[in-house]
Amino acid sequence: MREVDDPQSQVVHFAAHQALKLDAGVELSPLTIAYQTYGTLNATKSNAILICHALTGDQHVANDHPITGKPGWWTSMMGPGKPIDTERFFVICSNVVGGCMGTTGPASTNPATGLTWGLDLPVVTIRDMVRAQAMLVDYLGIDQLFCVAGGSMGGMQVLQWAATYPERVFSAMPIATGARHSSQNIAFHEVGRQAIMADPDWRGGRYFEAGVRPTKGLSVARMAAHITYLSDEALQQKFGRRLQNRSAPTFSFDADFQIESYLRHQGSTFVERFDANSYLYMTRAMDYFDLAADYGGKLRSAFHGTKSRICVVSFTSDWLFPTSESRSIVHALNASGASVSFVEIETEKGHDAFLLDIPELFKTTSGFLNSAAKARGLPPASK
Amino acid sequence: MREVDDPQSQVVHFAAHQALKLDAGVELSPLTIAYQTYGTLNATKSNAILICHALTGDQHVANDHPITGKPGWWTSMMGPGKPIDTERFFVICSNVVGGCMGTTGPASTNPATGLTWGLDLPVVTIRDMVRAQAMLVDYLGIDQLFCVAGGSMGGMQVLQWAATYPERVFSAMPIATGARHSSQNIAFHEVGRQAIMADPDWRGGRYFEAGVRPTKGLSVARMAAHITYLSDEALQQKFGRRLQNRSAPTFSFDADFQIESYLRHQGSTFVERFDANSYLYMTRAMDYFDLAADYGGKLRSAFHGTKSRICVVSFTSDWLFPTSESRSIVHALNASGASVSFVEIETEKGHDAFLLDIPELFKTTSGFLNSAAKARGLPPASK
Repeated sequence: MREVDDPQSQVVHFAAHQALKLDAGVELSPLTIAYQTYGTLNATKSNAILICHALTGDQHVANDHPITGKPGWWTSMMGPGKPIDTERFFVICSNVVGGCMGTTGPASTNPATGLTWGLDLPVVTIRDMVRAQAMLVDYLGIDQLFCVAGGSMGGMQVLQWAATYPERVFSAMPIATGARHSSQNIAFHEVGRQAIMADPDWRGGRYFEAGVRPTKGLSVARMAAHITYLSDEALQQKFGRRLQNRSAPTFSFDADFQIESYLRHQGSTFVERFDANSYLYMTRAMDYFDLAADYGGKLRSAFHGTKSRICVVSFTSDWLFPTSESRSIVHALNASGASVSFVEIETEKGHDAFLLDIPELFKTTSGFLNSAAKARGLPPASK
Repeated sequence: MREVDDPQSQVVHFAAHQALKLDAGVELSPLTIAYQTYGTLNATKSNAILICHALTGDQHVANDHPITGKPGWWTSMMGPGKPIDTERFFVICSNVVGGCMGTTGPASTNPATGLTWGLDLPVVTIRDMVRAQAMLVDYLGIDQLFCVAGGSMGGMQVLQWAATYPERVFSAMPIATGARHSSQNIAFHEVGRQAIMADPDWRGGRYFEAGVRPTKGLSVARMAAHITYLSDEALQQKFGRRLQNRSAPTFSFDADFQIESYLRHQGSTFVERFDANSYLYMTRAMDYFDLAADYGGKLRSAFHGTKSRICVVSFTSDWLFPTSESRSIVHALNASGASVSFVEIETEKGHDAFLLDIPELFKTTSGFLNSAAKARGLPPASK
C-alpha cells in the first residue's frame, strides 16, 4: 500500500495548526490531501470543477490508476472534448479523508505513533470530507467552484457542498444519490462491515502491523455491495442463469454460474487496491449522512437562499438510490427557491449507470455545464 | 446438534435398498426423514396437506421449536380453525433432504464413516427434496395429497410436485416463489456461501470433527439474506434511521442504528439453530432450480395436462420473488390449460409477508382450500 503514504498524486501536507475539525468533536492533524488536476485554471479562477468520488473511487478520475494500471473511473465523462471538457475546465479531484489513496486515512501512518492510524482514526462524515476539500480549494486559491459534481457518495458530498458553502458553488450536479442513507442501505453496509470484522486477519484493525490483511472479509463485503450496484434486470441480461465454461451444472459449490464467477472476480480484484479499514470508514460516513437532520429535519432549510444552479440526475433502475430520493432533493430545492433541474434517465443498468456509457447522462452533463458556463461568462466550447 | 441425529419428531429410516435417486446422478442411502403431522387422516386418506418449508424453515410448522422453544413458523396460518384447519385436514411437514433438523443432511452422521456427512453429501436439488417427500407420502400410504402448499423455497417444491407428480396433487398453493432462481438471487446466495467458506472455522466443511462451528460466517450470510426478505419500505417504516438506545451517534462502528442491532440479532440467533453446511446445500438447491429447463425450456410443458387446481400467490413488495415471477408461472399454467387462480396481495412487508399476519393471505388460503375441499367431496368446516 505504497500509495497510502507516498501517492502518485499531487499532495498537500497541512501544518499542525491547520487541523481538520471533525463532526466527531475532535481534530484530525496532521492532514494530508492527495489530489489530481486536469486542464488549466483560467486567470480569473472561474473555471474550476471539483469532482467528488464515490465509496470505492479515488482521485484518479481520468488517468491510469497507479495500482491497477486501468483507466480512470470517469474517462467516459471527462477529458478533452468530453462532457466535462478538460480543454475548457480545470478539474480537481481529491481522495476523501478516510480514503486509502494518499489522503489521511486509517491505512496512513500516524506520525505521532509511527503506526498506521487503524481504528484510532476518528470516524469521519461526509461533511468532514467536504471540509477537507474546502481546505484544498483554499490552498489552490479558488474562491468559488464553477461546479461540484459526483455520483453516489460523491453526490452526497455535492449536496453537502451546496448546503455548507453555497456561495462557493456556482453550480452543482448530484448524480444517483440521496440526502440521507436509507435503512436498507445502512443494512447492506453493516453486512459488509461485519464480514470484514469477522475475518480473523482483521485483528481489530491492526492487520498491517501483523503483516496480514483481511482480504476474505473485504472480498465478501465487496461482493454483497456489488449486487446493489446493478439492477435485477441488468444481472438477468448480463448473466442470467448462464453457466461459466461448462455445459452442465457440476452439482458442487464451484462457481457454476457466470454471476458467481463475476462476483468472485469483483471481490478478488477489489482487495488488491482497497484497504479494509478504509471501507469501514467510507461506509460509516455514508450511513451517518442525513442532510436534513443537520437543519432541524427540514431538507429545504439546508438549501435556504442558495443561488447555486443545481442539476439532479437519477436512473430509473437504481434501487440503491432510487429516483424517489432524488425527487425529495428536487422538492426541497424547489421549496428553497433554488434554480434546479431534474433529469431521470431511463436505463436498466442500475446504480452503476453513473459510471457507464449512458448517452443521455453525457448529453445532460454537457447541456447543464454549457448553460452554467454561459451564465458564468465563460467562453463557449471551441469547435 | 442433537436434533440432527435424534430429532424430536417422527422419523422414517428407509432401508438401504430404498435409496434416494439424486439429480446429481448418485444415490443417497441410508435416508432418514424427520417429519411432523397435525390433525387426523380421514378414512379415505383424502384430506392430507403437505406443507413444504423454506430455506431456513423446518418441519416444526405449528408446534414449539425444539431448539429455540419459540412457536412454529406458520402458527398464524395453521391450527384448529385457522386457514389450514387442523380440525379438517391432516397436515404433514418433513424436514427437507439436506436440512439439519433430522432428515439426512450434511450435519447428519454418515453411518458408513461414523463422521458427519459434511461436503461428502451429494448436492441435492428441489426435485430431490420432492422425491424424498414422495417416499414419505408413500410410507404414510397416501396416494394423492389434497394440497401441497409452501412459500419461497417451499413454493419451488410445490411447483415441482405439480410438475413431477400431477396425479398425486389435487390442489397446490405456491406462495412468494418463482419457477427459477434469478441471477440476482443466485448472487445473494453466493455471497452467503462465500461468507461461510471464508470463516476459518468452516474447515472445508469438517468443523464438527474439529469441535468448532463457522458461526461468524454463517451470521454474515444470514444478515445479507435477511435484507432481501424485507422491502426497502418495510425497513424504512420499521427502523428508518432511528438510533438504538442512544440519543446521538457514537462516531464508532458500534450498532448505532436500530437496523444494525436488528441484523446482528438475526445473525446471532440464527446460528444457534442452523447448520452452516446445510445453509450451503439449501442455497445451492434453490440456485439450481429452473423448472422450465427440465422441460425443454418451456415452463408450460412442465404443467402439461395437469388436473391440479393451483392458486398462485405473490406480494407487491416482494423483490426476491417479484410478482413478475408469479405471473410467468400463471401464464404457463394458463397455457397448459390448468385450473389456476392468481392473487397478488398488496403489502409493504416484502418477501417475508408469507410468514406474517396478512389477512388477505389467510382469506385467500381459506377460500382456495374450501373450494378445493368441496370439489374433492370433503365435508365443509364445522361451525
